[in-house]
This record gives sequence, C-alpha cells and structure tokens, in this order.
Amino acid sequence: MSAGRLIAVGVGPGDPELMTLKAVRALKDADVVAHFAKNGQSGNARTTAAGHLPAGIAELALHYPMTTELPKTCDAYRNAMDAFYNKSAAAIATHLDAGRTVAVICEGDPLFYGSFMHLHVRLAARYPTEVVAGVTGMSGSWSAAATPIAQGDDVFVVVPATLPVDELERRLAAADAAVIMKVGRHLAKVRATLARLGRLERAIYIERATMGDAVMLPLIKKTDDAAPYFAIVLVPGWEQQP
Amino acid sequence: MSAGRLIAVGVGPGDPELMTLKAVRALKDADVVAHFAKNGQSGNARTTAAGHLPAGIAELALHYPMTTELPKTCDAYRNAMDAFYNKSAAAIATHLDAGRTVAVICEGDPLFYGSFMHLHVRLAARYPTEVVAGVTGMSGSWSAAATPIAQGDDVFVVVPATLPVDELERRLAAADAAVIMKVGRHLAKVRATLARLGRLERAIYIERATMGDAVMLPLIKKTDDAAPYFAIVLVPGWEQQP
Repeated sequence: MSAGRLIAVGVGPGDPELMTLKAVRALKDADVVAHFAKNGQSGNARTTAAGHLPAGIAELALHYPMTTELPKTCDAYRNAMDAFYNKSAAAIATHLDAGRTVAVICEGDPLFYGSFMHLHVRLAARYPTEVVAGVTGMSGSWSAAATPIAQGDDVFVVVPATLPVDELERRLAAADAAVIMKVGRHLAKVRATLARLGRLERAIYIERATMGDAVMLPLIKKTDDAAPYFAIVLVPGWEQQP
Repeated sequence: MSAGRLIAVGVGPGDPELMTLKAVRALKDADVVAHFAKNGQSGNARTTAAGHLPAGIAELALHYPMTTELPKTCDAYRNAMDAFYNKSAAAIATHLDAGRTVAVICEGDPLFYGSFMHLHVRLAARYPTEVVAGVTGMSGSWSAAATPIAQGDDVFVVVPATLPVDELERRLAAADAAVIMKVGRHLAKVRATLARLGRLERAIYIERATMGDAVMLPLIKKTDDAAPYFAIVLVPGWEQQP
C-alpha cells in the first residue's frame, strides 16, 4: 500500500466565501480532515470550513495543551508544545501510513504564521505534501476596511506588538506600510510608538475583520487600551497617493 | 436610477483554482467585467478568471499607455499614468452611473500593490464599493515552494529590489523573513546584500510560482544574473524551527 497525501488547506480569514475553489475540492477529496483547536472549542478553521465538509467525513481534532499558566519563553512551555506537535504529527502519520489523504484545515494561509508549519517540518520530508495557499487574515482585514495598504516601491512589514518598544520602533521606522499583530495588552505601547514616528493619524484598529461582529476604527478614535490578543493595527503606506 | 456597485475582485496568483468562492460569485453577478492589461495582451487577471466569466458578459479592457521609453521617476511618466487612471475611472463611472455593477478583476489581492488601488482612490468615495480579498502572489509562491515563511514573533517584510543597496540592506536587516520583489536586473545586488547579511544560504529564487512553467531553486544554485522583472526571492524566517 502506498502512503496517503498530506494537504494543508488554507481556508482564509473567516468568511466561508473567501475559501478558494482548490480548498473546497481538497476537502471533498480528503479521507480525513484535521484541525487545530483549543480544548472544548471547535476552532476557527473548522467553523469556516464547516459548510464544505463532506457528511460523515472522518475528523481529527488536535487540541492544544493547557499551557496558559506557563510563560511562553520557559522550557516547560516549549517542551509541552513540542510534545503536542510530535503527537499530532504521529496521529496524522498513522492515517497517511494507512494510505489515507489527510487535509489539515488552517486559518488564513498555512505557511504564514500558521500552526500547520509545525506539522510541515515533521512530515513533509516523509510523505507527499501539498499546500493550498489561502487568503491571509491581514488581506481580509484591509479589504474589509477598504484600506489600500501598499503600492509601488513601498516597504511593507508585519511586526508583532510583543516586541520591546525600541525594537518595535526600529522595525516600523524601516517600513512604509505595516500590519501590527498580537496587539492585546500592548496597545498603549503601539499607540505611543506610532505617535513618535508621526504615523498615528494613519493607523486603523481592527478586531475580527471578516466576521459579523467586526470592530474597525481609526486608532486615534479608540479611547481605551483594551484589545483582544488577535486585534491588529494597520498602518497604510502609499503616502504619495493622488 | 441608483448608481451601480464597484467590486474589486482579487483572483489570486494565477492558478484559476486559487480564486475564492466570493470572486466567482462576484463575476456571476456583475454586469461589466473590467481588467487592466498591456496593449495587445489580455492580462494575467483576465487569463486567470477566463473560465468564470459568464458567456457574453460586457468587458472593459483598460490598456496601460506605452511608457516603456520613459523613466518611472520623470514627470512625463507620472502624468501619462495619472491621465490613464483618470480615463479608466471615468469609463467605469459611466457604467456605474447607468446602474451597472462593475467587477474589476485583479491579480493577487486588490489592495496589496495592485493597480486597482488607483481606481479605488478615484471612485470609492463616490460609489458603493466592495473589495474581495484574494490570495497574494507571494502566498502562491511560498506555497508552491513548500517553504514555511514566518512564524511566532518573526518580523516579515516585503521589499522591492529596486531600492538603493544601503536601503535594501537596512530594511532586510530589520526583518527575520522577507519577500524581495521586482528582482529583474537587480539580482546581483540582492545576492550580494543577502551574502553580507548571512542570509544567502536560506534564499529561494522563484519565477511564475503558480504557473505551469514555474522556476524555483535555491538562490545559491542560480549561476547567472538574468531574471525577469516579476521574479521574487524568498528569505524564510523561523530560524529556531525544530
């Protein structure tokens, strides 16, 4: 028996209509559909793809371990996540060894800040692997906000708000357009940094861009510092636009 | 009569299957489909979407002016392009004023380095406008190359190879992962810059990633400096990957 295929399926930023034709076909052709999720939740990718899962398809839920009490920089956290990804890869390998095609559904684009990447480095060398590109969360965000983000010779950067303030400033100063992700409890720092760089007036604050309950407003109009972990701030480039 | 709707439709990086369900529906619902193209050519977006254009749909081809003899920094070039975008916007506005829904098909994602942005700034304030996000060319590229690009707290940057060498080096040094676009005649400079930064061994050279005639190889294995304008170089981040 020959090994099955591993397919990473980007399902886009949340609106099920932003799934690609290729993603829909991959789900139709799969023997097993796997997805990452927090314990007790079904996961955003699973929710997005729900309408395109064949009735009765075998599913494999990969539940992240409970690590909320561990700082992300400590060895215990890294070891727990490493063990989790090893176990997940092994569970998928069992299906692949049995000749089954396994589709791993992924929010956004699988190889751009995605959990699938941890499976890819563990499995892609051993099994036939295909990656179906998806619309990223950030494309969904600036499209929903109708905000042109970068043009011509603009330098575009994606930075996590978790960086130390001097690092955040250095990276933003080296770009014309930016997406600042993982805003969470770092909003005050992001606001102050953009103000120092003279970019605050251009910035847009966004939560859940392509969902029904989206929040989008100019950052200068947001009066508090409360933001969920996955909130983002867009800093549009193209400053010479007509 | 009420004005029609303007819809920017991202059709993705070239593989027609990487069009979204929403893009396909937008083309079905449109009265007029517009696209940018070089004179005498049908345009990549038009080629990608061809299988999803309703039979007999009205089409509006927006042909770029012949400006190959003009340096891009000179006033004559800027004036010619400005006049072209004004004329294009006016042609679309005529349809919108007549109550027709106009879909402008766009390679990749409409608001990410796309020509549509020039129509957006001219029309979006005057007409109901919607943007359908698309898979970017760069997502198509790293997916086709099966190359994880950025993870965790990586800083990701998109830089044009056209930058002066010191600027190129400064921008790349401020990032963990990079896409270098518009490589063209700048390949020797890109190679030398990545070598100075110690990143040359990680870099991947790509032409036409999601087309049948794709070229993908480690940059260190490319022995000449010949590259088309739209070639890109990927510099994957995630250096601490397991």
